[in-house]
Amino acid sequence: MTNKYVAGTIAVIFASRRTGEDATGYEAAAESMGARAAAMPGYLGIHSARGADGFGLTVSYWADEASALAWRDDAEHARIRELGRMRWYESYELIVSSVTRSYDWER
Amino acid sequence: MTNKYVAGTIAVIFASRRTGEDATGYEAAAESMGARAAAMPGYLGIHSARGADGFGLTVSYWADEASALAWRDDAEHARIRELGRMRWYESYELIVSSVTRSYDWER
Repeated sequence: MTNKYVAGTIAVIFASRRTGEDATGYEAAAESMGARAAAMPGYLGIHSARGADGFGLTVSYWADEASALAWRDDAEHARIRELGRMRWYESYELIVSSVTRSYDWER
Repeated sequence: MTNKYVAGTIAVIFASRRTGEDATGYEAAAESMGARAAAMPGYLGIHSARGADGFGLTVSYWADEASALAWRDDAEHARIRELGRMRWYESYELIVSSVTRSYDWER
């Protein structure tokens, strides 16, 4: 089945390792950033998972480059990113990509 | 800092929901598939996380389309994919994308 993320969708892959510090603050910030991203123009969806080892992976999907860049440049997002570097993340990788094809499967 | 996944790298995003069935068989298959993928030509790396809720996200990175397709078509991979549909997955999404830029950050 065809997936909703059509060719040209921007997929922003964020792979992070947590410090283990301030879990409560991190959870609150993650939830608030999720809601804020979802209200941005061009937001299409998100996938997110974090294992017990502190390694997490989030992919956010955007209609085009302009909307992905607007989210990157959002002032509140930038403020929280700085807190993340100070407190919550040991390291991270950010990988921006453009969707070429996608599929769904359901039982 | 520049990340190792340069522009043109193929990122294969696999988002899945587990059934909860046969956790042991799933773990063994996931480990064996990870090792098999890593031995394929053009394999560059992998990111993977699964939360306690059964939702998992894996991104594998490939030098080019040809190597990503060779992995898709690998006979042992295809056999395990069938087992996954029969036993381990409730649903999944597969999203293929091409990297445009990437960054690293370390504390």
